[in-house]
Amino acid sequence: MYCIGIDIGGTSVKIGVVDKDGKIIKRGRVVTDVAGGQFKIIDDIGKLVQTLADPADRDFVGIGIGCPGAINSATGTVDRAYNLNWENVPLAELLARYVNKPIKVSNDANVAALGESMFGVGRMYSDTIFITLGTGVGGGIVIGNKLYEGNESKGAELGHMVVAIDGEQCTCGRKGCLEAYCSATALIRETRKAMIRDKGSMMWEFSPKLEEVDGRTAFECSKQGDRAACEVVDTFVKYLGEGMLNFANIFRPQAIILGGGVCAQGDYLIYKLKDYCKDRNYGFHGTPRFDILTAQLGNDAGIVGAAALILSDLNNK
Amino acid sequence: MYCIGIDIGGTSVKIGVVDKDGKIIKRGRVVTDVAGGQFKIIDDIGKLVQTLADPADRDFVGIGIGCPGAINSATGTVDRAYNLNWENVPLAELLARYVNKPIKVSNDANVAALGESMFGVGRMYSDTIFITLGTGVGGGIVIGNKLYEGNESKGAELGHMVVAIDGEQCTCGRKGCLEAYCSATALIRETRKAMIRDKGSMMWEFSPKLEEVDGRTAFECSKQGDRAACEVVDTFVKYLGEGMLNFANIFRPQAIILGGGVCAQGDYLIYKLKDYCKDRNYGFHGTPRFDILTAQLGNDAGIVGAAALILSDLNNK
Repeated sequence: MYCIGIDIGGTSVKIGVVDKDGKIIKRGRVVTDVAGGQFKIIDDIGKLVQTLADPADRDFVGIGIGCPGAINSATGTVDRAYNLNWENVPLAELLARYVNKPIKVSNDANVAALGESMFGVGRMYSDTIFITLGTGVGGGIVIGNKLYEGNESKGAELGHMVVAIDGEQCTCGRKGCLEAYCSATALIRETRKAMIRDKGSMMWEFSPKLEEVDGRTAFECSKQGDRAACEVVDTFVKYLGEGMLNFANIFRPQAIILGGGVCAQGDYLIYKLKDYCKDRNYGFHGTPRFDILTAQLGNDAGIVGAAALILSDLNNK
Repeated sequence: MYCIGIDIGGTSVKIGVVDKDGKIIKRGRVVTDVAGGQFKIIDDIGKLVQTLADPADRDFVGIGIGCPGAINSATGTVDRAYNLNWENVPLAELLARYVNKPIKVSNDANVAALGESMFGVGRMYSDTIFITLGTGVGGGIVIGNKLYEGNESKGAELGHMVVAIDGEQCTCGRKGCLEAYCSATALIRETRKAMIRDKGSMMWEFSPKLEEVDGRTAFECSKQGDRAACEVVDTFVKYLGEGMLNFANIFRPQAIILGGGVCAQGDYLIYKLKDYCKDRNYGFHGTPRFDILTAQLGNDAGIVGAAALILSDLNNK
């Protein structure tokens, strides 16, 4: 028994044949021909799927798709995906013309959350929160081994929770969202500010020009004890920690899983977060604690997570 | 077909026989004998239940209980309830000695949320968030007509979401929680601060002494155009609005229902909140909006909501 997982991105579409244990047993990839439009992209995907798995094979149980943007997962329609230039694209319906199998579509962050929960670092847990720290802050919610996307599959916008009212401007229009403090973009912004304030900071050696600053600059220099870098990291940890505690008080997850580029900091970041969150859980004594983990599936999260849309349904039946 | 709803409070226990439509058809009440201890309280409840409904009647389908504190709803145990002085009380098990029916226990705020969702102002919706604005800020989450309590029934602490990092001290130990700005306690604190700042405010006429200030002072004077009062109300609406938007971005509820004393302000508060939340939803265009409503069940919310613990199970089967 196997399925197909499809990870649609702005530059390429990654496709994998995935077995029931979440292992990728065959791979393929097509360039995302955004200029060619929706029919061209879906045609490319459909044809590649046909070469990777035989639609007539009864062991081939379905196709899961992770796609950026706002998805209606009940109908398998992409309501809007700005970087694909898609609006109201009936993705599942169009792809079914190539492969007549059950097709499920969800938002890419949700899909990664489900993948990590079922087959990644969260596989020992039933209730997890996944937060990706990238250009923006995305996330996903798994409750009782099932993806929770919010009503009409339009929730789980975990990066857009205001934690600092009247704070930094967020891309969403509000001020003080988690994303405005914990994205790589925000980390770089704060690192640059700290460097401008402290011309003697070691960060100037690590990133001699402001445009060379990246998500590692403050972290690597804070490991060396640089005071300005430590302040940037401590502030980052504080905001992320408060966001995580907010999710904990709502969902009481067994684990919060962090993904995205900033997580390359691994244990250095995790230990600081654990230390911050310790003793701050609501009703601390007797309230279940949450583990803090880094995502494990890396670049495969999209494919494996998409496949998990099909596999989680089978496993829960 | 009917059930019993029990609303355990610090001063009295209210009990009602509730029909399948959420209507209370018979009522009873006992004083909460906190000094008498758990066995005395449960003995009082058990005996009253026996007089209200015949345990042998097959139409009597179960007992729902709302109780303050931290509840383990899987076992029907009260882990901790400070104002009852209870710790690890196997409430469902002890009460079953009096009436051998299915017994379900949940936190009082969760129970009120389910009651309003099934039989109150939220009955047209499947996905609602309930926020009580009282001495503290509590809440409950209903997803697909079912109560969602968080993992181990220890989540849904909606008042303990930090919206203003480093903000006002909260009772939970963190700073800047929604409760620290939107409880009646916080509203009174801010009203007093505004009065001290502005000795000419009309609020001094409404509440001549600071200790007479209550949750109505700022609201009533803002209706008369008092500048200082308007500022207090606007700030209250802003914090509550941001909290509601945070929940909306996570759950995308069809409606957010407000309960507690402050809601006596009715439409005056609701219109201001609607105005605040308009255009601030994440992905505003095309993202489902949420209605904002005031709770309808009033003092009966506890009994009806407790009964709903039993009735929602039957209706969803």
